[in-house]
Amino acid sequence: MADMPHVLVVGAGAIGSFYGAIAKRAGCAVSVVLRSEYDVVRERGFAISSPLGDLSYRPDHVYRDGDTPVATPDYVICCVKVLPGIDRAALLAPWVGPDTGIVLIENGIDIEPAVADAFPDNPLISCLAFIAVSRTDEPAVIEHKAFGRLTMGAWPAGVTDDCRALEALFTDGGINVKLADQVVGERWAKSLWNTPFNPLSVLADGADTVTMLDTPGGEALAREMMAEVKAVAAADGHPLPDDAIDKNIAGTRKMPAYRNSMALDYLHGRPMEIQAILGNVVALAERYGVAVPRLSTMATVLAMRDRLAEGDA
Amino acid sequence: MADMPHVLVVGAGAIGSFYGAIAKRAGCAVSVVLRSEYDVVRERGFAISSPLGDLSYRPDHVYRDGDTPVATPDYVICCVKVLPGIDRAALLAPWVGPDTGIVLIENGIDIEPAVADAFPDNPLISCLAFIAVSRTDEPAVIEHKAFGRLTMGAWPAGVTDDCRALEALFTDGGINVKLADQVVGERWAKSLWNTPFNPLSVLADGADTVTMLDTPGGEALAREMMAEVKAVAAADGHPLPDDAIDKNIAGTRKMPAYRNSMALDYLHGRPMEIQAILGNVVALAERYGVAVPRLSTMATVLAMRDRLAEGDA
Repeated sequence: MADMPHVLVVGAGAIGSFYGAIAKRAGCAVSVVLRSEYDVVRERGFAISSPLGDLSYRPDHVYRDGDTPVATPDYVICCVKVLPGIDRAALLAPWVGPDTGIVLIENGIDIEPAVADAFPDNPLISCLAFIAVSRTDEPAVIEHKAFGRLTMGAWPAGVTDDCRALEALFTDGGINVKLADQVVGERWAKSLWNTPFNPLSVLADGADTVTMLDTPGGEALAREMMAEVKAVAAADGHPLPDDAIDKNIAGTRKMPAYRNSMALDYLHGRPMEIQAILGNVVALAERYGVAVPRLSTMATVLAMRDRLAEGDA
Repeated sequence: MADMPHVLVVGAGAIGSFYGAIAKRAGCAVSVVLRSEYDVVRERGFAISSPLGDLSYRPDHVYRDGDTPVATPDYVICCVKVLPGIDRAALLAPWVGPDTGIVLIENGIDIEPAVADAFPDNPLISCLAFIAVSRTDEPAVIEHKAFGRLTMGAWPAGVTDDCRALEALFTDGGINVKLADQVVGERWAKSLWNTPFNPLSVLADGADTVTMLDTPGGEALAREMMAEVKAVAAADGHPLPDDAIDKNIAGTRKMPAYRNSMALDYLHGRPMEIQAILGNVVALAERYGVAVPRLSTMATVLAMRDRLAEGDA
């Protein structure tokens, strides 16, 4: 056990503290960097209820900005929200040593370059989380409701020994891991749903999936937006299967009415990952010369709202 | 004066009571049909302040639904908001005689057929109002701030004797009237601005013109939406001038930051004329096979909001 890896989580919200718990369960030393919940976690650790059992744990070290790590971690797990004005590379820099593997568990398209450019010599592992986990009203008390699977690959492509080591670790900790040779393609597959539906639900004032699809013209609009995403994905070298849109719509139709995470962020007045989910897709479309009139309409309208809110503030 | 026309206003809100005042000033007998302000207007009439002077007046008759008119009016002026679920023809029916001219002073595209189909043998005069007039917090107290010009033509086209008689009457009353051989073309010219900017301001949470245009991508989006409107207008037989978009953008840039009437309706929780301003343009685009991806995205998102609001209600 002496050489179990040391994992450090930057951005230990619901998702970050959950995957920290999984690493802890696998026997790793797990440290966290916190802002608002520093004192609470230092005192009591994280309380995490889960169908996997009680995942509560005390991190081996609890850091805050400006601290120096006791030991250089083997893996830094970055679960920071991808937002304009948040310099994730700067947040990671104090904790990353020359051999530290950087693990992104974050949403969105084209979110790796900002980190990769800052740490060109470190292994970079890109992950997508399929999980239902949320904070509660009480600080550092987390509720894991369902799922937890990670899709994981080296960025920009491939499955490295680092990936396999991390896969083994998370599997030991109790979750499923899918290794992906083309993790960017996996991001596009997830984006096919998220890029239309997340911002659409915000523009539609927090509407759920059934409301959106059952509105006359709603399903057609969702399909057209998905086709725009699909075209950008193909231009980016990651063509999606022909039936991807049909399958996504059918899958959504099978679920009960559902408010996605961005709709919930909107309804709670929290920052939204619009740039990562939508803006970066529109930017890639421009770079490749792919027409995305519906997606860019949404992106511009949401930018107008931001500008209005800034002006009103 | 014995044969001065008898005018009856249906939908005597700010605009209806204003043009009633102008007809009154021209010497007409002016009656109104009211709902909520029936008692107040019966008792005190309308109080209307205006740069034209004090336009306050007592209608010759104040009616409400179910009443029978004392005399059949020569003109029925319809200033009802064009909203789904509001049957304007049914609202007009009790007041329209065989020779009554029906005058629409209303916004939107393709709003005449619902009335024309119900009264195929009556003259139908379609008008656009360029006016800044609003209710105050006090019932039947109206504030006319500026403008008042009407663009007027027979529907579907032409300038009839009825138009000229009405022009003379309103001119006597103190406003400018522009007679238009192609009033539908005039509607398209106004729609070039209203159809993009009105719903856009709603989706952008009540944003003003400067916020919308100064957002990165905002002016480009407005121009693309205007190009979509222009294409539908052309397909509808009403091509707009090549420089219409440039002129509209330049004109908007010259104005101070401005919240349009639909933005104000949105911010005050009032019903919005989305169908008349946007929905009918999208419907015509579908009929003519013109692609309007940005306009139809807006229309569908706004329909999703309506559906959500109905579900929540």
